[in-house]
Amino acid sequence: MAESAIGVGLIGCGTVGGGVAKLLREQAEVYAQRVGRPIVLCRLLDKEKDRVIQSGLADADIVTDDVDSFFDTPGMQVVIELAGGTGAASTFVQRALKAGQHVVTANKALLAEQGPELFALARKHDASIAFEASCGGGIPCVTALTFGLMANRIDALYGILNGTCNYILTEMTGKGKTYSKALADAQELGYAEADPTLDVTGGDTAHKIAILASLAFGVKITDGQVPARGVDQLDLNDLRFGAELGYDIKLLAIAERQPDGDSIGVGVEPCFIHKSELLAQVGGAFNALSVYGHAVGHTLYYGAGAGQMPTASAVVADVMNIAAGWYPKAFQAMRLTPDLHEPAMLADPDSLLSRYYLRINAMDKPGVIAKATAALGDAGISLSAVLQHETNAGSYVPVVIVTHQARRGDLLEAVRRIESMDVIEGPPVTIRIVDLPA
Amino acid sequence: MAESAIGVGLIGCGTVGGGVAKLLREQAEVYAQRVGRPIVLCRLLDKEKDRVIQSGLADADIVTDDVDSFFDTPGMQVVIELAGGTGAASTFVQRALKAGQHVVTANKALLAEQGPELFALARKHDASIAFEASCGGGIPCVTALTFGLMANRIDALYGILNGTCNYILTEMTGKGKTYSKALADAQELGYAEADPTLDVTGGDTAHKIAILASLAFGVKITDGQVPARGVDQLDLNDLRFGAELGYDIKLLAIAERQPDGDSIGVGVEPCFIHKSELLAQVGGAFNALSVYGHAVGHTLYYGAGAGQMPTASAVVADVMNIAAGWYPKAFQAMRLTPDLHEPAMLADPDSLLSRYYLRINAMDKPGVIAKATAALGDAGISLSAVLQHETNAGSYVPVVIVTHQARRGDLLEAVRRIESMDVIEGPPVTIRIVDLPA
Repeated sequence: MAESAIGVGLIGCGTVGGGVAKLLREQAEVYAQRVGRPIVLCRLLDKEKDRVIQSGLADADIVTDDVDSFFDTPGMQVVIELAGGTGAASTFVQRALKAGQHVVTANKALLAEQGPELFALARKHDASIAFEASCGGGIPCVTALTFGLMANRIDALYGILNGTCNYILTEMTGKGKTYSKALADAQELGYAEADPTLDVTGGDTAHKIAILASLAFGVKITDGQVPARGVDQLDLNDLRFGAELGYDIKLLAIAERQPDGDSIGVGVEPCFIHKSELLAQVGGAFNALSVYGHAVGHTLYYGAGAGQMPTASAVVADVMNIAAGWYPKAFQAMRLTPDLHEPAMLADPDSLLSRYYLRINAMDKPGVIAKATAALGDAGISLSAVLQHETNAGSYVPVVIVTHQARRGDLLEAVRRIESMDVIEGPPVTIRIVDLPA
Repeated sequence: MAESAIGVGLIGCGTVGGGVAKLLREQAEVYAQRVGRPIVLCRLLDKEKDRVIQSGLADADIVTDDVDSFFDTPGMQVVIELAGGTGAASTFVQRALKAGQHVVTANKALLAEQGPELFALARKHDASIAFEASCGGGIPCVTALTFGLMANRIDALYGILNGTCNYILTEMTGKGKTYSKALADAQELGYAEADPTLDVTGGDTAHKIAILASLAFGVKITDGQVPARGVDQLDLNDLRFGAELGYDIKLLAIAERQPDGDSIGVGVEPCFIHKSELLAQVGGAFNALSVYGHAVGHTLYYGAGAGQMPTASAVVADVMNIAAGWYPKAFQAMRLTPDLHEPAMLADPDSLLSRYYLRINAMDKPGVIAKATAALGDAGISLSAVLQHETNAGSYVPVVIVTHQARRGDLLEAVRRIESMDVIEGPPVTIRIVDLPA
C-alpha cells in the first residue's frame, strides 16, 4: 500500500448501514487493492448502540450513541450519513463538512431540500459530498449522468425511481390486484414501509428527480418545486382500459427541456407509456432512468432502486472513490452541483403539452358523449380515440377518451366543464400519456 | 477560468472524429464552464488533409498530414486516437504516452490486443488512457463498471455489443428477412461496413468483451482468448423455431464467474434468451450491457452502441474528465486496468454448462428420433422439449430438441455422433440457450 489507511465514520446502522458495515468488513482486502489504501470503519454512531453491538456488525469499542464522541474520532476523513430525514442529518452533515470531512449520503430528502447550501458548504471547506445512493439505489446513474454524459446537453429525463410504487403497479397490471391489495402485499414483502405515504404519494420520487434534474440541466431545483401525484388514487379499471389501448402505467419522474430551449417541465405522476417501450418492461421493485442527450441520444440505466445491499453498493463505491482521491478533485474542479447554478426556469405546469387519457362516467342516453367531447373541442383539443364497451350495467357507463396533444391547462379546464355536467357522474379520471422520444 | 486552457490533438477525422471536432467547437463554452478551463482542439492529424480542411471541421492551420509535425504541437496535453487498427494507431498511442500526454481512444481492437502493455506504458509516464468509447459506443458502461460498481465482486456480464449484428437479428426476427437480406439493408442504412466481416463474425464483440471482462473481473484477457461465433451462419428457420419456444436470438458477449469462484467462462455466440428478458427488448442498432454484482444484483446499461455523435459523446466526456484533472488521478490511484492484473483463469469452453437448442434434419421414418435422442441420453444429456411439425415435404424433416443443462463438450460429442448417422442429413444446428440470472 502506497498510502495510509482512510478512516470512515458511519451514522445510522439500520438496514443500509448494516449492509455498508458488512461490505467494508468482508471485502476489506479487495477494496484496499482497488483504491490503493485500506478503508477502515473507525466509528459508528447509532441511537440504539446496544442493538448494533449485539448485531455483531462492528467491534463494540467503535460503536457510540454520543454525537460529540463520534465527531471527536481521530483520523475520520469520511462520514457516511444514513440517519435519514432533514433535521439531525443536516446537522451531522454540516458538522462533518465544517471539519473538512467528506460526506457520503443516501439522503434524497436532505439533498432535495438543502442540496445547494450543503454543496456550497462542502466547497468552502475543501470537502466533498458523494450521493450516488440518493437516486436509483444501486444503479450508478449519478456517476453516469455527471461524468459519463458530460459532453451532452441533456434534453430529457424519464425515471421510474420508486421501487415500492413500481412493485404496486406491476402487481395491479400483471395480476389484477387492487391498489390496496398490492400495497398490503408490498408491505408484507418488505418493499413498502409501515407508513408508505412518502412513497405512494410521489414525494420520494419528487426528491430524486429534483436532484437528478439539477445535475442534468445544470440548474437549481428543490423538491418543493416538483408537482407530484402518486399511485394511491389509481383505479384498476383505468389500468385495464389503458392496457386495451396498448399502454402500461408507470409512476414517472419527468424533466423535459421545453421547446424554448431554456425552461424545464418537471413533475411526478402516474403516466401511460406504450407497452413496447423499454421503460414499460421495468417490473417489480426495479428502477430505471432514461436519459436523452443531444449527442448520445437515448440511454437507459436499470437496476435495484432500493434494498440493503444494492444501496450499500452505491454508498461504498462513493467511499472508495473518495478514498482513491479522485472524487474530491472532481467535486471541486467541475461545476456539477446546484450550488454553482442559477434557479431553474420551470415551465408553468399548465403550459405543458401532452396527450391525455380521460375516463368519464356518462349517463347512458343519446347525446351525452357528444356533449362531453364538445367541451374538449371548444378548448381546441382533438381526440384520437373514444372507447365505450357495451354494458348491461346501470344508468352510467364508463367512456374512455384519448386526446391528441393538448396544453394541460386547457385540458383541465375542459375536464372541469365536463365534471359540472349533470349527465356525468363523479370526477373524470385524467392520466397523462407520455410519448417517449424516438 | 481558474486554470489555463488544455490543448487537445485529434488523430483521424473520419465519422467519429468529425463528431468530436463538432462537439468541441459548438459546446466550447459549456464545456469550459463544466470542467473549469477551456478545452482547445489545437492539432488535427489526418492522411486526407485536404478533405478535412474542405469539410470546414477545423481551421486549416491546425490540420496536418505529417506525424512529426502533429506531435511537435506545443501545449498538446491530450491525444485522441481515432485512427483505428492495431498498427499505426499503436505507434501513435505509444508516442503520446511516452511524451506524458493523456490518450483518449475508441479503439477496441488495439486495447483488446495490446491493452496491458499500453496501460503499463501510461502508468510509467504518469499519463492515462481513457477508453469509454471503445465499448458500447455512447453508453457510459466503462464509467459505470469501474467507478460506479466498484464495491462489487462482479459475477457475470452479458452484452449486446455490436449494433450491426443486433440490427440484422432484429430484422430477421421481426420481419422474417433472411440473413443476406438483413445484411444488405444494414449496409444500405450505414449500420454495416462495406466489408462487414469483423462485425458479423463476432470479432468486434470479442474485442469489447475482452476489455470489459478484464475490468469487471480484475484480470488480463486478450481478444485471442475469446472464442467467437458470429451471426453469419444463422438460418431464419431456427429463429422461427426458437420463437415458438419463447426465445429471441441475440449475439451475446458473455463472461461468467464459474461455480469454483475463480475461473471465468468467456465467449461470443448467438444465443437464445427468453423473450421476457430486458436484453431481449434491445432492438435495432442499440447495445446493452447487463452486469451482475454480488451486492448490487442486476444492473443494465442501454444506448446507441455506435454512430457518429453517440461515440463522439463518449470520446469528449473522456477528454473533459481528463481536463478536469480527476481521471488521470483515478487512473493512477486505482488498480483498475489489466496491466496490474494476472492473466485470467479461463474455463475450458467444453466444461461450461448450459441448455442447448438442437435442430436436426431427420429421415421421416419410424425410430429415427429415438436413435438421435439416444445419442444425447448416452452422453448423460436429458431433454426438456422435442418439436416436430407435421410436414408434407420430402424424406427429411426438421426436428428441434431442447436439452437440460449439459457440458458443452458432452453436447458437441453427442452432436458429432448424431451427425454421423445415415438417417440424419447435414450438420445439426446448435444454439446455446442462456438462462439469465434472476
